[in-house]
Amino acid sequence: MALVVQKYGGSSLESADRIKRVAERIVATKKAGNDVVVVCSAMGDTTDELLDLAQQVNPVPPEREMDMLLTAGERISNALVAMAISAHGAEAWSFTGSQAGVVTTAVHGNARIIDVTPSRVTEALEQGYIALVAGFQGVSQDTKDITTLGRGGSDTTAVALAAALSADACEIYSDVDGVYTADPRIVPDAKKLDTVPYEEMLELAASGSKILHLRSVEYARRYGVPIRVRSSYSDKPGTTVAGSIEEIPVEQALITGVAHDRSEAKITVTGVPDHAGAAARIFRTIAAAEIDIDMVLQNVSNTAGRTDITFTLSKANGPKAVGELEKLKPELGFTTVLYDDQVGKVSLVGAGMRSHPGVTATFCEALAKVGVNIEIINTSEIRISVLIRDAQLDEAVRAIHDAFELGGDEEAVVYAGSGR
Amino acid sequence: MALVVQKYGGSSLESADRIKRVAERIVATKKAGNDVVVVCSAMGDTTDELLDLAQQVNPVPPEREMDMLLTAGERISNALVAMAISAHGAEAWSFTGSQAGVVTTAVHGNARIIDVTPSRVTEALEQGYIALVAGFQGVSQDTKDITTLGRGGSDTTAVALAAALSADACEIYSDVDGVYTADPRIVPDAKKLDTVPYEEMLELAASGSKILHLRSVEYARRYGVPIRVRSSYSDKPGTTVAGSIEEIPVEQALITGVAHDRSEAKITVTGVPDHAGAAARIFRTIAAAEIDIDMVLQNVSNTAGRTDITFTLSKANGPKAVGELEKLKPELGFTTVLYDDQVGKVSLVGAGMRSHPGVTATFCEALAKVGVNIEIINTSEIRISVLIRDAQLDEAVRAIHDAFELGGDEEAVVYAGSGR
Repeated sequence: MALVVQKYGGSSLESADRIKRVAERIVATKKAGNDVVVVCSAMGDTTDELLDLAQQVNPVPPEREMDMLLTAGERISNALVAMAISAHGAEAWSFTGSQAGVVTTAVHGNARIIDVTPSRVTEALEQGYIALVAGFQGVSQDTKDITTLGRGGSDTTAVALAAALSADACEIYSDVDGVYTADPRIVPDAKKLDTVPYEEMLELAASGSKILHLRSVEYARRYGVPIRVRSSYSDKPGTTVAGSIEEIPVEQALITGVAHDRSEAKITVTGVPDHAGAAARIFRTIAAAEIDIDMVLQNVSNTAGRTDITFTLSKANGPKAVGELEKLKPELGFTTVLYDDQVGKVSLVGAGMRSHPGVTATFCEALAKVGVNIEIINTSEIRISVLIRDAQLDEAVRAIHDAFELGGDEEAVVYAGSGR
Repeated sequence: MALVVQKYGGSSLESADRIKRVAERIVATKKAGNDVVVVCSAMGDTTDELLDLAQQVNPVPPEREMDMLLTAGERISNALVAMAISAHGAEAWSFTGSQAGVVTTAVHGNARIIDVTPSRVTEALEQGYIALVAGFQGVSQDTKDITTLGRGGSDTTAVALAAALSADACEIYSDVDGVYTADPRIVPDAKKLDTVPYEEMLELAASGSKILHLRSVEYARRYGVPIRVRSSYSDKPGTTVAGSIEEIPVEQALITGVAHDRSEAKITVTGVPDHAGAAARIFRTIAAAEIDIDMVLQNVSNTAGRTDITFTLSKANGPKAVGELEKLKPELGFTTVLYDDQVGKVSLVGAGMRSHPGVTATFCEALAKVGVNIEIINTSEIRISVLIRDAQLDEAVRAIHDAFELGGDEEAVVYAGSGR
């Protein structure tokens, strides 16, 4: 008998009908002799509807209340799934994140899990119940207020519970049947991967892959929880995210996949006087606005002793960043702030590049062959990322995927309505 | 400076716009120098929508999960009102019933409040915040599960909080501007009452008046909390429910008002063998099905030693009661079970009837004059109720209202959309 944690996302729960299908799967898992813990996100459109209502009563809603509001969504979906399970012949209890012992920092909207003490969940399992736990939420250790966990919070809840319960398996269900060598909607011959080590999944997630969220993969790696990514529409085994690249013998290390990201924009501060502290001032200003930066490029200074500083950031933060930088102009005396939101990032990920020279060369040649110009390049031990024109993104992904022979023989399966 | 508890019902909160109006009123109360605690029901249609979703996944949903589901509604409305308050220049924190210290029995769907320990509410007030508390819910003392309080639960939450906080005022807001001598939609010259003592309000509530729920009035009487019934659409002072009929000098005691009730049905078990235990068997069977009975009538036994037993109950329980009684037929040997759901109840309430003989006579004469036949009559010290044909209910209410000269000179104000 195993202890299985399953997580179902919003699109798997978007209607009463889908909820009943999910309940059938959960009951089947229980009847196969397992203890089952389920984490549910809010139903399909609920979070957006609640955000809309909030906007109508206050354009800048207080964060504490936003968390109180949004967590109603997961309460609803988990209670409905528990009811559906009951209609299918098993018994279930639903719990809020707080009731399930998910203790967090006090940062509303982006809390981090400090500890998980799931005693009520364990009790429920011991009494033969299936336990449902609302994802994306917890309770602040300091203030005892309800908190939400930020993007991918339900994945993180599932992994954290699996770790705390020493679960045998943690299954993340969505409308895709695993992690692919590239987005199957762009690359028809993309192959489903059987296994991906933690570090590679982290790089893929950071590079635009939306299958699993970065924080949940970090948590899984830290606690050694193997994650299985599966589709809620089929019985296929999916992809297992587990193990470290350190465990892979050098000669077996591979190139794993290609990720792409359309969510970034590029800012260039031109004509920055080239003296110590100018760049620091620019980056400190951005950091003070709580904006994260991704890729950075600083030109060699020209004959006039001026340089351009370029960086990328999330499009959502673009206007705010430009505003903050404009305020610096009198002080720093740079020429102008340029904003370009028609960029895209494409990345190649694989432990194999540590031991195979020439990967960077092959990568750049593949792009050059299809006329794609590299604007910024950024690498880690197991990843190469470049910033290019977003209109060329699909073509670039395919070119790199082909150059590294990542394609399979079967056409990739794309489910109708895959929102990823 | 006073501590004011305000309760807003679902129709006062049915849209973002209404929520903003309610927030304005709350902030005005705060800015007038008061500490303010607010209890909100779920927004207009939310509870029905959630019930509908529940039905779709399980026609007989488990009660624990129904409470987890429905309480999401109050969470949403209270968080939104808190946000709206913030947009209007004050600060507010919302709390669930559990967070506010509302401790209850373990009966899902109909829990009773055992205790209220509102320390987090008090802290919020001390820090200058307005405190919002989700109505209709609490946490079970024994199981630590979330519970809902049954009909009128938000009124009860408000009164219980007012008692625990020793509030100076408890204001219940809806879309009617007070308690009237009769339903203004039936009796155009019905008068708004300035004050109603607890015992009379209890009788009115038990007799069909929907302004305040029985349990909340019982709670208010037990703890001496004065309740003000007001409209959220105007600034009128409303009706105060406070004091005991014992405090009213005999010569000032009045007839207060007329209530009516369309929610009951009548069951007659005919030809019941007239021996000891037959009636007891019938009533025990109904009680075992957890069905409440209201009025009872047992005919004098006829020459064949048989009698008819008649009682009224909520229409919602009608079919179930008939089913349970049919099962008794072989054992008791009665003739048949008759079910009649075209009955209505009309009641006259007033402390004055204790000291004024002839009230019953006047009451019956008024009905006879308009051709209304009395099927069952039932009285208490301060109430007379009769069961009649529901088609004659409006006429009966008007006839009694006139006979006791309860009407005022001004036409009663009826708000468009008054749902009561």
